[in-house]
Amino acid sequence: MNYKVIGRYLGLLLITEGVFLIPPALISLFLHESNAFYAVLATILLAAVVGGVLFLLCRKCKREFYAKDGLVLVALAWFVLSAFGALPFTLSGEIPNYIDALFEIISGFTTTGASILTDIEAVSKGLLFWRSFTHWLGGMGILVFIMAIEPSGKGKGNSFSLHVMRAESPGPSVGKLVPKIGLTAKILYALYIALTVLCIGMLLLGGMPVFDSFCIAFGTAGTGGFGILNDSMASYSPYLQTVVTVFMALFGINFSVYYLFLRNPRAALRDEEVRTYLLIMFGAVLLITLNIYFSATDFGSFKECLHSAAFHVSSIMTTTGFSIADYNLWPSFSKWIILLLMLLGACAGSTGGGIKIARFLLIFKSMRAGFKRMLHPRSVQVITLNGKPVEDGILQGLWVYLSAYAVIFVISTLLISIDGFSVLTNLSATLSCLSNIGPGLDTVGPAGNFASFSWFSKIVLSLDMLFGRLEIFPLIALFSHDVYRRRNINIRRAL
Amino acid sequence: MNYKVIGRYLGLLLITEGVFLIPPALISLFLHESNAFYAVLATILLAAVVGGVLFLLCRKCKREFYAKDGLVLVALAWFVLSAFGALPFTLSGEIPNYIDALFEIISGFTTTGASILTDIEAVSKGLLFWRSFTHWLGGMGILVFIMAIEPSGKGKGNSFSLHVMRAESPGPSVGKLVPKIGLTAKILYALYIALTVLCIGMLLLGGMPVFDSFCIAFGTAGTGGFGILNDSMASYSPYLQTVVTVFMALFGINFSVYYLFLRNPRAALRDEEVRTYLLIMFGAVLLITLNIYFSATDFGSFKECLHSAAFHVSSIMTTTGFSIADYNLWPSFSKWIILLLMLLGACAGSTGGGIKIARFLLIFKSMRAGFKRMLHPRSVQVITLNGKPVEDGILQGLWVYLSAYAVIFVISTLLISIDGFSVLTNLSATLSCLSNIGPGLDTVGPAGNFASFSWFSKIVLSLDMLFGRLEIFPLIALFSHDVYRRRNINIRRAL
Repeated sequence: MNYKVIGRYLGLLLITEGVFLIPPALISLFLHESNAFYAVLATILLAAVVGGVLFLLCRKCKREFYAKDGLVLVALAWFVLSAFGALPFTLSGEIPNYIDALFEIISGFTTTGASILTDIEAVSKGLLFWRSFTHWLGGMGILVFIMAIEPSGKGKGNSFSLHVMRAESPGPSVGKLVPKIGLTAKILYALYIALTVLCIGMLLLGGMPVFDSFCIAFGTAGTGGFGILNDSMASYSPYLQTVVTVFMALFGINFSVYYLFLRNPRAALRDEEVRTYLLIMFGAVLLITLNIYFSATDFGSFKECLHSAAFHVSSIMTTTGFSIADYNLWPSFSKWIILLLMLLGACAGSTGGGIKIARFLLIFKSMRAGFKRMLHPRSVQVITLNGKPVEDGILQGLWVYLSAYAVIFVISTLLISIDGFSVLTNLSATLSCLSNIGPGLDTVGPAGNFASFSWFSKIVLSLDMLFGRLEIFPLIALFSHDVYRRRNINIRRAL
Repeated sequence: MNYKVIGRYLGLLLITEGVFLIPPALISLFLHESNAFYAVLATILLAAVVGGVLFLLCRKCKREFYAKDGLVLVALAWFVLSAFGALPFTLSGEIPNYIDALFEIISGFTTTGASILTDIEAVSKGLLFWRSFTHWLGGMGILVFIMAIEPSGKGKGNSFSLHVMRAESPGPSVGKLVPKIGLTAKILYALYIALTVLCIGMLLLGGMPVFDSFCIAFGTAGTGGFGILNDSMASYSPYLQTVVTVFMALFGINFSVYYLFLRNPRAALRDEEVRTYLLIMFGAVLLITLNIYFSATDFGSFKECLHSAAFHVSSIMTTTGFSIADYNLWPSFSKWIILLLMLLGACAGSTGGGIKIARFLLIFKSMRAGFKRMLHPRSVQVITLNGKPVEDGILQGLWVYLSAYAVIFVISTLLISIDGFSVLTNLSATLSCLSNIGPGLDTVGPAGNFASFSWFSKIVLSLDMLFGRLEIFPLIALFSHDVYRRRNINIRRAL
């Protein structure tokens, strides 16, 4: 283990977090929210001191790192980030219980959007801003941000950045857009900022207040879904809801496809994952619209049904979690589709969570190849994605990931079942946290929240959110004693 | 395709079914159930005529067959078996709707035990006997029975029997106990009959009426679960319930382990799958006992809780489906365990259904090997079961099977959701049928039944039962146009 490089980046991370806490501090200062202001200020100072000391202590580190160092750094980074990020809520007394505050902020950073707040509108504006801002930071990854602003490393430094980016970015495989990983991170953040600014602009055009526009745009861009009103997005105009519907869908698309689009639009439009993503999205909207329009309960005109179906399909499939109606009341056919979309998730390399469309494409293709192999064992079946053959290692990793996902899902649901809520509540709560969505069904549906779970369940669900955001492996590496052995075999190709 | 060999076996199958219909006919005759008697008699004659003509037409068949012929035969055999087996219910007017009768008899042959009957005690004894007897026939497989009584084939004939047995027997891989497959089938049936007779004896000792003993023993041996009383097993004495608990667990064990036990007891006791099976069973009993004993609702003394937990864990895990209480009333922690046991299932090569413990062992071992490979990519990870390395082909087949299982589960649940029952009802009904259990949760719980589903959902669930019993591939082969092409490459190793 190269502990110094890990310490160095954790130091940088804390300093960065301190800097990002300045806007919330200023908002609280101007709005005379003194409790919130002092709480944020104290956190900034603490983060700066601890971060500064760590950075200075670990400044000089060995230039020898392995994939496992990247994995462990990413896992630790997210714990440290959350531990400090939760402080303002507890210090200000707005969320007195630290476990609750931790749940809320992990939900923010992992872009889940599950909340334990029963009255969101009572929270100070400064902390509401911070809460939504964590979605934006967590969406693309705060370590990726550090890679983007750090002077580009060469050789080994570059390869370490790649390990970290691979571990922090979601999806089965992260390609470098350009040979230099620092530049790749810059391009990703540039696209991210551009799309976010566009979203804010469209919201402002529709007459949304400036504060709301920023918070909602952060929640949309990070596919997080923290609202700032108690009814999430229900009281905004249909225009604003439509803007959010479209932007949620846009942020669910692989960012490298946007980059490709700028250089070769035709190739980008042929991307298999994006096509499948849009196809499933439109299919789900169609099925739900018809189902709720023709159901016995009245959900309004066909147009209203379509509007509501489109909003929630986009919200759930991109794992954002905003809502404009209580889909708990929908017929079970639509609820089952919602559950399936929760599992599916968005595109790999987007800010969305879930298992990801790319993985399901690979599963489907493996299955088809398997059947063919069974009927014609001498035929050769090559699995391709966007015309390129997929390595066996990626497929093996996929099965390991899915098995681990299932095991975590099953055990988490069992553990939170102790609280005694309904089976549907428990399984949808776990699924929602593992896929970083936010709302589930039944008690944790769009009209409910996670406040009534025990502190034990909140810890389990917080871990699920981290497992979901970091896609399991970094956390497994962190807790695996194998990693800390001195056998430093090079495992660059491990991921 | 070798259509003649398929026709020949379908003919033999119908004749055999006709023979097996004789006991129900005699029971109806003696009990003066004239409607039932004439219905069964008509079915016997029809089966004999159709079967006889088929057999004579296809008597002389080519001695060239492939795995796909075995797959298609098995799939067709189960459709034909069910189509004729359902006739007595409709002809006698006891289940007027043929789709309902088909559901009931497919549930019988696949050893599911899901019922559309709302008043079981109103059914004539002859047909009740037939209904339970189908469990016994379907448990070990009626084609396996034909292999057992047929004069042993040599060479090619032997290899065809192997294809058929592989396709009809549940589990990831079927080994031959002895080189001759006909003898293997004989040994399996001998063990099956011996254990069934033992079970009948133990039930008679406890004072159960003779008719009940046979029917309950058939349901236990086939891990089917059709009761003959409206309250399933609730009104029998605790002794009888305990006998059934133990025998359900015994019939969930791989039959080749029993054979091994007779020759090398120590090796049999070291079998990894059986150990895991028993470990999970005891763990589940313990957790559920504690959960219901300490829950707010009163489920009786500790001993009563233990008795009920043991009965239902054994019933669900072996996919039998008998019940002595309504576990729908249990806390959601216990209900989640029940759902997981539904998915798990019994041992491969037993009469039980579900995904099977052996598969989960392989999944778990692949996952562990995958993690190790990720951290130490140069290490070699060999996956073993009972000390023997598992071929890559079997692992690939496992993933294909699991993917297909998940796809069928998701689509079936979506289709039956149209009926508008609760999400938990739908998903547990599909799971219950796919795993050949019988009862699910909520509307289809132990106190409910499948009568209220639409005819469309009943067809979907009937197909699920067949998919579950035949483990997907034979049905996929039947519906795959690839199979009917003239390219007769030898695919002996396909399964």
